[in-house]
Amino acid sequence: MLHLVGLGLADEKDITVKGLDIVKKAERVYLEAYTAVLLVEKEVLEAFYGRSIIIADREMVESASDDILKDADKVDVAFLVVGDPFGATTHTDLILRARELGIPTSTVPNASILTGIGCTGLQLYNFGQTVSMVFFTDNWRPSSFYPKIAENSKIGLHTLVLLDIKVKEPNLEMLARGKIRYEEPRFMSVAQCAQQMVEVEEEKGEGICGKDALAVGVARVGAADQRIVAGTLGQLREADLGRPLHSLVLLGRKTHDLERDFLKEYAVDKNVFEEIWERNYGKTE
Amino acid sequence: MLHLVGLGLADEKDITVKGLDIVKKAERVYLEAYTAVLLVEKEVLEAFYGRSIIIADREMVESASDDILKDADKVDVAFLVVGDPFGATTHTDLILRARELGIPTSTVPNASILTGIGCTGLQLYNFGQTVSMVFFTDNWRPSSFYPKIAENSKIGLHTLVLLDIKVKEPNLEMLARGKIRYEEPRFMSVAQCAQQMVEVEEEKGEGICGKDALAVGVARVGAADQRIVAGTLGQLREADLGRPLHSLVLLGRKTHDLERDFLKEYAVDKNVFEEIWERNYGKTE
Repeated sequence: MLHLVGLGLADEKDITVKGLDIVKKAERVYLEAYTAVLLVEKEVLEAFYGRSIIIADREMVESASDDILKDADKVDVAFLVVGDPFGATTHTDLILRARELGIPTSTVPNASILTGIGCTGLQLYNFGQTVSMVFFTDNWRPSSFYPKIAENSKIGLHTLVLLDIKVKEPNLEMLARGKIRYEEPRFMSVAQCAQQMVEVEEEKGEGICGKDALAVGVARVGAADQRIVAGTLGQLREADLGRPLHSLVLLGRKTHDLERDFLKEYAVDKNVFEEIWERNYGKTE
Repeated sequence: MLHLVGLGLADEKDITVKGLDIVKKAERVYLEAYTAVLLVEKEVLEAFYGRSIIIADREMVESASDDILKDADKVDVAFLVVGDPFGATTHTDLILRARELGIPTSTVPNASILTGIGCTGLQLYNFGQTVSMVFFTDNWRPSSFYPKIAENSKIGLHTLVLLDIKVKEPNLEMLARGKIRYEEPRFMSVAQCAQQMVEVEEEKGEGICGKDALAVGVARVGAADQRIVAGTLGQLREADLGRPLHSLVLLGRKTHDLERDFLKEYAVDKNVFEEIWERNYGKTE
């Protein structure tokens, strides 16, 4: 059987008891390590699980999935996914391929940033669709997130923005010379995301994510050093939340008093936060 | 410290290793048992955790929270929540009250139905706001879910519908005679939910959740006997998914081919499913 096992958000102890039982018994253990990362190294997981782990990069999962699925009709194979197994399309695809080969599958759910973001006190049923923010380059500034945020915003909903991570990206200069060298991993920060949102707002001008829009930045959700910072996008451009992973929520106007009470504790500037909240938020419900 | 510990969705082994460590060491262990329930009894949890558990009903959490928080500035108190700790407003409120009393808090995230619903193959970033469906009575048929579903539907998004549960509801007849007797617990089924949605559509007539709209019913997500059934709301009115808990997703039109491929395996009638999908879904992306 192919078991997709969610690992949760922070460290080796975020696996569930059910998940750990599977890992301990499986014939082979893979770790999907390109759509998200834990805050601890592979070696920490191996020591805690008592198993050696095969890192499954994008190439392996997308092009060599038969290796992963080999004999899985007869033995147990564990495929570990940071967060919840269904956080990324690629895992749905893996299950479909297992089905085609007649391999039974099981999944062990776990915490995902989609619900972990509740640590901000924002009510999960007030979130609209989730968007992703990629690193802008000089000549590639995709703004496909903007209409989606605008859709959420128009009906008063919060938007969770998932921030780009780059792991195992080939260095293009070396590649042109026929050599494969990988870049250092990069993780987008809350500050970068806020900056990109404000820039795109300046181009589009629909009043969706400008400097005065309220947002919440989070870092290392579920870890002991988790951080939450609330403020305007203008303020968050300057915020330093420390090491990865970061995420951001753009607030919707349909808010609950509890959300304000919970969040203001984390405001960059309580007065600015309360003044803008009073003026622009919490009106429709 | 007050620890809010998520228990996940199905049984005693869905707690995380981190959560279990806290439960084993805490001075007192409460279980919130009115916004959601696990699929196993309290006694099973107690045996597995090696701890006795105090059931915290709505009255205790909302009116007698000081009992829960007693001495939590000095000792560790574990407050167990089915799913993720931030799934319900009431837990945010408990943290705020702890803060007022100067009691430090921590939370241990876990799987929630909001992400567990990914077992349907529906992409989580294609979901809009979440709605709740309550049991209709002869003279109370709240349709506040309808405009929210309509908002999601108009921008092509899926809607997760959380189904009513009634636990520890006083029998009104006995109450009138001055006696407190509790009703048997009740859990809404996918079939009931589909029926109520179709009825409200007939009243409102905006074409949001009529008999031919595609939906997915799920039962016991994360358990060994998890079930998924896809079909029209008309078909789901007749579906029997067995014991609780159930949830339902109304499909949005903005779909991915992978979602169709994954779901059709669970269709009540594959031909009907594919025909309606072909006609009405997957057009906008």
